Amino acid sequence: MKIETVRHSLAHVLAYAVSELYPGAKLGMGPAIENGFYYDFDLKTPFSQQDLTKIEKKMRDILGQNIGFKKKAVTKAQAKKLFKNQPYKLELLKELKEPTVYESGKFVDLCAGPHVKSAKDILADAFKLTKIAGAYWKGNEKNKMLTRVYGVAFGSKDELENYLKMQEEAEKRDHRILGKKLGLFVFSDLVGKGLPLFTAKGSIIRRELERFVVDEEIKRGYQHVYTPELAKVELYKKSGHYPYYKDSMYPVMMVDEEELILRPMTCPHHFQLYASQPHSYKDLPIRIAELAKQFRYEKSGELTGLIRVRSFCLADAHIICQKDQALDEINNVLGLIEYVAKTLGLEMGVNYRYRLSLGDRKDAKKYYKNDAAWSFAENVLRKALVQMKSPFFEAKREAAFYGPKIDFQMKNFAGKEDTAFTIQYDFVMSKRFNLNYADKDGKDKEPVIIHRSSIGAIERTMAFLLEHYAGALPLWLSPEQVWIVPIGAAHTEYARKIQRELSSFRVVVKDENETVGKKIREGELQKIPYLLIVGDKEIQSQSVAVRERGKGDTGSIALSVFKEKAAKELASKK
Amino acid sequence: MKIETVRHSLAHVLAYAVSELYPGAKLGMGPAIENGFYYDFDLKTPFSQQDLTKIEKKMRDILGQNIGFKKKAVTKAQAKKLFKNQPYKLELLKELKEPTVYESGKFVDLCAGPHVKSAKDILADAFKLTKIAGAYWKGNEKNKMLTRVYGVAFGSKDELENYLKMQEEAEKRDHRILGKKLGLFVFSDLVGKGLPLFTAKGSIIRRELERFVVDEEIKRGYQHVYTPELAKVELYKKSGHYPYYKDSMYPVMMVDEEELILRPMTCPHHFQLYASQPHSYKDLPIRIAELAKQFRYEKSGELTGLIRVRSFCLADAHIICQKDQALDEINNVLGLIEYVAKTLGLEMGVNYRYRLSLGDRKDAKKYYKNDAAWSFAENVLRKALVQMKSPFFEAKREAAFYGPKIDFQMKNFAGKEDTAFTIQYDFVMSKRFNLNYADKDGKDKEPVIIHRSSIGAIERTMAFLLEHYAGALPLWLSPEQVWIVPIGAAHTEYARKIQRELSSFRVVVKDENETVGKKIREGELQKIPYLLIVGDKEIQSQSVAVRERGKGDTGSIALSVFKEKAAKELASKK
Repeated sequence: MKIETVRHSLAHVLAYAVSELYPGAKLGMGPAIENGFYYDFDLKTPFSQQDLTKIEKKMRDILGQNIGFKKKAVTKAQAKKLFKNQPYKLELLKELKEPTVYESGKFVDLCAGPHVKSAKDILADAFKLTKIAGAYWKGNEKNKMLTRVYGVAFGSKDELENYLKMQEEAEKRDHRILGKKLGLFVFSDLVGKGLPLFTAKGSIIRRELERFVVDEEIKRGYQHVYTPELAKVELYKKSGHYPYYKDSMYPVMMVDEEELILRPMTCPHHFQLYASQPHSYKDLPIRIAELAKQFRYEKSGELTGLIRVRSFCLADAHIICQKDQALDEINNVLGLIEYVAKTLGLEMGVNYRYRLSLGDRKDAKKYYKNDAAWSFAENVLRKALVQMKSPFFEAKREAAFYGPKIDFQMKNFAGKEDTAFTIQYDFVMSKRFNLNYADKDGKDKEPVIIHRSSIGAIERTMAFLLEHYAGALPLWLSPEQVWIVPIGAAHTEYARKIQRELSSFRVVVKDENETVGKKIREGELQKIPYLLIVGDKEIQSQSVAVRERGKGDTGSIALSVFKEKAAKELASKK
Repeated sequence: MKIETVRHSLAHVLAYAVSELYPGAKLGMGPAIENGFYYDFDLKTPFSQQDLTKIEKKMRDILGQNIGFKKKAVTKAQAKKLFKNQPYKLELLKELKEPTVYESGKFVDLCAGPHVKSAKDILADAFKLTKIAGAYWKGNEKNKMLTRVYGVAFGSKDELENYLKMQEEAEKRDHRILGKKLGLFVFSDLVGKGLPLFTAKGSIIRRELERFVVDEEIKRGYQHVYTPELAKVELYKKSGHYPYYKDSMYPVMMVDEEELILRPMTCPHHFQLYASQPHSYKDLPIRIAELAKQFRYEKSGELTGLIRVRSFCLADAHIICQKDQALDEINNVLGLIEYVAKTLGLEMGVNYRYRLSLGDRKDAKKYYKNDAAWSFAENVLRKALVQMKSPFFEAKREAAFYGPKIDFQMKNFAGKEDTAFTIQYDFVMSKRFNLNYADKDGKDKEPVIIHRSSIGAIERTMAFLLEHYAGALPLWLSPEQVWIVPIGAAHTEYARKIQRELSSFRVVVKDENETVGKKIREGELQKIPYLLIVGDKEIQSQSVAVRERGKGDTGSIALSVFKEKAAKELASKK
């Protein structure tokens, strides 16, 4: 029995139950969908959540009657008579040449099937009605808004429970839900799909991540540059990216006689910087990094919160080095990535794993033809992974067209894997862009290029972190680090004094006219790391009553002690 | 006598002199241009700079002969005979119906004039040959490359001298020349016109400016956000910008059913953030700031280094406030701008002045029609300027379409004024975007919007600063702050030790195999603030021999003393 058939049959049972309980209800459509089913109803009064419980109970009653699902061919005239009180069914009927109906007990629905044979094939404890929503008839906003009842259904009670647990987890961890709850980013119909606007709070997280990675990379010998977000199409034709990427690139813009296009990647820009002056072997490796805005046209169906967007900021870099420096450089990048991951609180094997992504020598269309170069590059990457003693798996046909790569595969709360950071070995671009360096013997040589990202796309990494921490970000990333809650108006002055004292933190004084209890609850919902409650006692002893996130009331301590402790936590990025 | 006529006549004298000195030279064209003239020659061997001196002397000899400039109408046949050895003149002749020639002494040129009557009208000490360049015949690269000789000429010797002095100044101060000399930014034909790529060094200046302004603004109560670089065209139609800006906007890109366009300004994006949640009067003023990438299609002829580009990063902000908060907010912005200008070392009245830019009530096409609002807003801005006791001038028809503004007019080295920062009063957008706040009485009110920039477009401000300081940027903005020059190989270890000691500075150890003298000269050319020379003596006394930019050798001091002094200078941003 296909689970889709069970789900669709449950939609009929749902409509049956509604028809029994609310005799005037007009029926729309009721298909199976991912994880369950729905049915649309035209009602006098929309359902409440309580109605759902009642309907669900009725559905179980009906299933207990062991009803069948009997298919019957009918003439159009017969069907019209059957559904004379169901205007939506009559409308659907117009499009059908040979209508069929399904009979289940006293309920008849216009339907092509298939269905289960009888209620025995449906597990009464493996489905659940989940929510009510408005939906236009036939999805057209010019039509009437109907009430849609959603349900989920699975092959076993366990499966259902797992699913519901995961949903609950999603409610806690899904970054799109958290983004709204914590006020971090919004989308706007007027701006466009897949183009997030970061609020003040979300921007703090982003800026902290950006500055962290820029400073760390500079410390590790990278140059951090700025290059334009757009360039002539010619640049990407020369790099060879164009044929591979053109479907995900934005349309060309004619400006004067130039054909400009938003960049889908940064490499050719960095190559232009390298090529703007001559280089000697003594200059290498040169590591050019950038917080690079990139633009890819993702299909609207694939857009997912901050994970998949149409414009993103990649912490990108290109290392230009001699061939015999490549292994060292790759090791350095792996070291940087491990450092970044550790700082962000991500654990190898739990939150991410390494993938060695290989090309396919036989596919010269997708992968640049040079068997020796592929072998050499694959071995260098494999050696680096083996040297660092990290487990990894190999994946065929996942390489870039210009060489193999190491992918840092991050798992989201639901176990779904996405590539977060990469290290790519490139033996193609030097030739294409005529990049070279004068070697010891004075002759021009082609360098190797390593494309890499250390912290990935800032948007995507933010999404991972929000889900990983269920919104309770470490102190250094928390938009609001400390709330000071004065017990009464008389304590506001002291609260302000503390705020000035804690000027190296992001502190909010919560002096609105609300109860302390309400402010504490709000602070907990907003995942504020520290709530400091201050009243007469605290003023007298120059202390603060601390409520720590996840720990609750941890007692009163001297302000200076709190300050020192919080400063240590901030510096440790823990 | 028009100066253009003098200049064109000097072109003839130049050709006369060349014909006398280099009898085989074929003559191309020789028009007057801005500040002077040129003439193109087809030569067996191209001229050297020394030839110019010789030619200039010959020109003065010719002028001393008091030659005339006599116009003569000739038939085509006569002309062909006259120019039988001048193939370029013969080619030009083909296009002429009624050719005329000018006779000056032994020299005859095909020319429509006008010219001075005689050499007496030309001041022999008010012109100068300046340079030689290659130029294709008729500007077409398929034609032969000719040798172009440029000259400048003015109405007096003083004018010439002033011009030459200014040119020398430009050589020292022009940010385009400095950008190359100091290796700060490059342009690439493959990337496109008006799209600078910042090198590692240029990027340091940019990042310092960006972080300075972001941190300062956050300190002053701004939220610093990130919004997308592109949006639906609809957004700019709704704001009303589209009709005013569409000529300088990039072309529309169709993505799915959305018409997307690169943003020419940030305001509607910030309005979307404001509109994403309800606001009360208690929340106002809300100050939304961004380092905002913006895109304007400037004609290629108007592109100027970093001053006028096709993509720039504006330190933009929009203050949304109650009407009676506007004056305070404008005062705050003026305070911020003065602070920024002072920090950057710019002086009111010398480097910049204020302009109050007004609308034109009669031009309802260019300026939003609302006389009362214009009057009110103009008075608020005028009051703010008067209160701060800064002299300012008023300019008609320089306002934005949505209200009047204060412009901060910066002068470049040549005295040319450009707008660097602005404060704009906007009484239009709230209505257009339905922005509002709940007032004390619970009713929705329209806020006032102030558009402003505190440090302008980062690119343009960098250009102003480079010109202002002739490249010798203050310590905090210098890409390389300290060079340590070890006298010999034996002192490199000590140099590295100092580098580690000075880890809060950007320090380079100059250990290449070059003489100390050469390194010092290079450091001076590169405008390095501090050169520290270290040898045996310095190791023994744990000191450094300091060469300070602009001051030369300032003697040996203990490393700890230098460190303290430099740290103070860095913190002061002086």
